[in-house]
Amino acid sequence: MSRPPTERRTVRRVTGHDRARTIVPRPDELIVEEPLSILLDGTRVSTTMRTPGHDEELAVGFCLSEGLLAGTPVIGVRAFAEDDGASTGTGPTDTTAVDVETGGRAPTPTPRLGNVSSSCGWCGSEHIDEMYGRLAPLVDSEPFDLEVIGAVAERALGAQGLFAATGAVHAAVVFDRAGSVLLAREDVGRHNAVDKVVGALALGDGRVVALPATGFGLFVSGRASIEMVQKAWAAGFSAVVSVSAPTVLAVDAARRANLFLAGFVRGDGFNVYAPE
Amino acid sequence: MSRPPTERRTVRRVTGHDRARTIVPRPDELIVEEPLSILLDGTRVSTTMRTPGHDEELAVGFCLSEGLLAGTPVIGVRAFAEDDGASTGTGPTDTTAVDVETGGRAPTPTPRLGNVSSSCGWCGSEHIDEMYGRLAPLVDSEPFDLEVIGAVAERALGAQGLFAATGAVHAAVVFDRAGSVLLAREDVGRHNAVDKVVGALALGDGRVVALPATGFGLFVSGRASIEMVQKAWAAGFSAVVSVSAPTVLAVDAARRANLFLAGFVRGDGFNVYAPE
Repeated sequence: MSRPPTERRTVRRVTGHDRARTIVPRPDELIVEEPLSILLDGTRVSTTMRTPGHDEELAVGFCLSEGLLAGTPVIGVRAFAEDDGASTGTGPTDTTAVDVETGGRAPTPTPRLGNVSSSCGWCGSEHIDEMYGRLAPLVDSEPFDLEVIGAVAERALGAQGLFAATGAVHAAVVFDRAGSVLLAREDVGRHNAVDKVVGALALGDGRVVALPATGFGLFVSGRASIEMVQKAWAAGFSAVVSVSAPTVLAVDAARRANLFLAGFVRGDGFNVYAPE
Repeated sequence: MSRPPTERRTVRRVTGHDRARTIVPRPDELIVEEPLSILLDGTRVSTTMRTPGHDEELAVGFCLSEGLLAGTPVIGVRAFAEDDGASTGTGPTDTTAVDVETGGRAPTPTPRLGNVSSSCGWCGSEHIDEMYGRLAPLVDSEPFDLEVIGAVAERALGAQGLFAATGAVHAAVVFDRAGSVLLAREDVGRHNAVDKVVGALALGDGRVVALPATGFGLFVSGRASIEMVQKAWAAGFSAVVSVSAPTVLAVDAARRANLFLAGFVRGDGFNVYAPE
């Protein structure tokens, strides 16, 4: 059982200036972030600050999009409470860990020393090399209609319930060639939202979309940094569309991946970063 | 020597619809993200995807704001290239690692298994407990003028050169009671921008601001998640102001820290989340 994804706090709303200023207490819906440990066959492979909900999808999506499964099928997913949760204020029944089970057939995860950060779980240039070694360029796919690309951000907004409630959460959204939104996940972490989408597809929740997601597009709120491109590439998406800018590394990786990458999708147009 | 923080790529700008659509190639300035290893007395404590520049500040700020120094003074900071950089396209003279030296007087860092993500370097509920155990509530400080709080986002914009160039980078900005911007750092990672600011203050680059930064405010672009509050708390700032929303955990931590926390600072007002 997960803690709800939002909680209410009383905040003070400040408007106006100087003598015309008003300060009004009001309830505000805030997004929850809480640690989740991800295990692969009992070995901890990640701890992420995530928004509770879709925890099994997140764990499976992480293992898949980070290449930890190496093609091994998942035979079970077990969510559990690692401790009594007393100290962190979470309830004793809350999910704090998810074990992705392959019956020991996935490669033994390599322990990595030290923290890894910048919204991703990347551990340096070895990881970049490893990605290029592991992932083959995507198969050619019929190009998306540019009209669909330009409209996807607005269409995706309708699927972002937590964003509407809190204004502070990222989304990853699967869309098809017609621009229809097929699946959406939201999380305080951009990469978590993508992992939840990939996990949902892997677990069959995407229904019509199977992995690899050839011919489908992935819309991400926020920027497209390298981990978004890597995860989309690992899941076999044909396109990534972002409302904001990609990084240099993301553009270079998308070009190498044969992955269509558009960004700055706003009312007045957008940029195509890949193919070149 | 660092790689420049931005690089140019040719992209295709798409505007208009259907038959009135134009697709024009144009050069675009993109933000660089590149791994940096942070070492403490020769032991790797983090690898972060950062925007090159101010690498020594980032490393010192990380060690300080994550509590790894435990009050030990830094006696040296050494930036170097860990490998020849050939495979990642970085030049052989680029900085890929920074060692923060205390002559072995800082506590030996504990290796942590697994990736850690969500833009932070947090590793779970133990980390939350550890933070509350390590950091005492901040000393009382004269409240900030709400007029200053409401105006800081706009004032900070002038110090965000990389954002102006790329539209895709986060900022952390130190301001004083008068609302003057004293120091600004930008990075592809929100937490990196804060670490760079904290490191700059620790290394004396903030000039008038010394650590703890009692009586000074920290403005952050983007959301205020727990790590922003933790880092500001560790550096002794009296206020954190964000253009977007805080998380539940960030609000609860700020209240416990005696740290003023405002968010959604926009043209029409803002919210005060802490004190309660």
